[in-house]
Amino acid sequence: MSDDPSGSEPRRTAADNAQLALLLEVSATPKPGNVDRHRDLDDLRFEQFMAGAVGAGAGLRQAADGGEIGPAFERAVAGMAEFAGENTQFGCLLLLVPLVRAAANDALTPDGVTKLVEATTVDDAISFYRAFEHVDVAVGDPPEDADALDVRRGSDATETLRERELTLYDIMGLSADPNDGIPDGNAREWVTGFERAFDAADRLLAAEGPIGDRTARVFLALLAEEPDTLVAINHDEATARNVSERAAEVADDIAAGDDLSAAEELAEEFVDAGYNPGTTADLTAAALFIALERGLSV
Amino acid sequence: MSDDPSGSEPRRTAADNAQLALLLEVSATPKPGNVDRHRDLDDLRFEQFMAGAVGAGAGLRQAADGGEIGPAFERAVAGMAEFAGENTQFGCLLLLVPLVRAAANDALTPDGVTKLVEATTVDDAISFYRAFEHVDVAVGDPPEDADALDVRRGSDATETLRERELTLYDIMGLSADPNDGIPDGNAREWVTGFERAFDAADRLLAAEGPIGDRTARVFLALLAEEPDTLVAINHDEATARNVSERAAEVADDIAAGDDLSAAEELAEEFVDAGYNPGTTADLTAAALFIALERGLSV
Repeated sequence: MSDDPSGSEPRRTAADNAQLALLLEVSATPKPGNVDRHRDLDDLRFEQFMAGAVGAGAGLRQAADGGEIGPAFERAVAGMAEFAGENTQFGCLLLLVPLVRAAANDALTPDGVTKLVEATTVDDAISFYRAFEHVDVAVGDPPEDADALDVRRGSDATETLRERELTLYDIMGLSADPNDGIPDGNAREWVTGFERAFDAADRLLAAEGPIGDRTARVFLALLAEEPDTLVAINHDEATARNVSERAAEVADDIAAGDDLSAAEELAEEFVDAGYNPGTTADLTAAALFIALERGLSV
Repeated sequence: MSDDPSGSEPRRTAADNAQLALLLEVSATPKPGNVDRHRDLDDLRFEQFMAGAVGAGAGLRQAADGGEIGPAFERAVAGMAEFAGENTQFGCLLLLVPLVRAAANDALTPDGVTKLVEATTVDDAISFYRAFEHVDVAVGDPPEDADALDVRRGSDATETLRERELTLYDIMGLSADPNDGIPDGNAREWVTGFERAFDAADRLLAAEGPIGDRTARVFLALLAEEPDTLVAINHDEATARNVSERAAEVADDIAAGDDLSAAEELAEEFVDAGYNPGTTADLTAAALFIALERGLSV
């Protein structure tokens, strides 16, 4: 196809793979408690996730073209919110944007992405805060001494961020390891070289069978391994631990047999109870992106 | 958001709406005989349509940026094939690319798109033929006197196209009204101002309820109104007429009641029988695009 008159060859860009990761994440089923191919929630429908993935495209392409992480993230969130009308993938994008930027630098490794997130600036932090103005995001209360840094302040936090010279990486550090309050699972990825996402990507690549089944199994394993931040925020930490214990039981059943029916039952149970492990879904999307970059195909 | 530091505002581009139309089309259920949110076919899975929609993005953006119709179409098809590994949305793209180009010109009307397709060139026709080299597309046999123009010739048809000075619009005219063989439903859209797509878009906008249900109803109405080209190619014209008659019966049942269960039964029946009304799905995607451009939201 070197004589392709359309000028540029079709290339599989990191932004494309990130959009596909968002779509494959929401399509995989069963993912207990979350929207999936077979389940909507009362206030979030499958089609809104399709729309969010499309709307995030411009911001993801900005990151793939070498744009700064904060502005690319803000743009991805704004586009997601415009298309979906709700917060569908804020947490996914917080993980995907630095990973896309790393892939575009040919540095999609724990070290490569760590160098990028450590190099984020105060301006990136300001963009991150402003992203909360585009959409309603479930967040925990800030630590008592950190009210000025409550993300719900949006751009009102600008002055504080500048005064204290806090970069986006600093903010993630505070959220990953708060004095009190709930540690944020996505922030922890930022400060640990996206450890769990890379590990889950390896599992996606090593698994066999249809991509939707592999993804559902990896989601369940991730949920079993660590309490979900969003469940802890929307309910409490005991509930989050309990949800993970239930997931671990089902993950064991599934590992023993070969059938996802126990996970189907858990999905009904969690949807009914309103347990929505959204942070685990964010990690799953990040893992899908890494796996797609490394050759996973649909 | 006029102080958005990311440089450009998030804007809902025609290429974004075309990608979303592809995703909403495949997600809508039940669409008897086709892949939908609840059904895969033996040789085509839902995830491949997600991948195809992502892969087509670069070509759709080329059209939205004012690129020529033939090369933008070829690029969209090449990207779709690279991502999906199969022909998922060739026919959809044949309709969407000129519609996207028309929308980008602020001329998304039957007249506006007709001016664009009438202005296509011999080079556009050559790109169209080359698109068949990227992916295996089900096509009817060419008319007996038109073997040199069989699309399966791919770029081997270049010389013939140049000698006879045939534009892409000319080629669509031949397919829309062949001497013998099966008239192509998508080609007919090209030469009739995309009449059925615009009409179906009006119905999508006028309907009520969740977008997936509206889309399923419009799909069924389109199938009831005209025999599907792909069914006629893969089976025969009598089968295609019979499939449309069955769809008409169910469409009447649904119009009388308010429940899609008769369409669910028809979906099982058509999948079992291998009736795959793909051309009707192409029209549905085109209608979704027009409706999204006119304000339909998820």
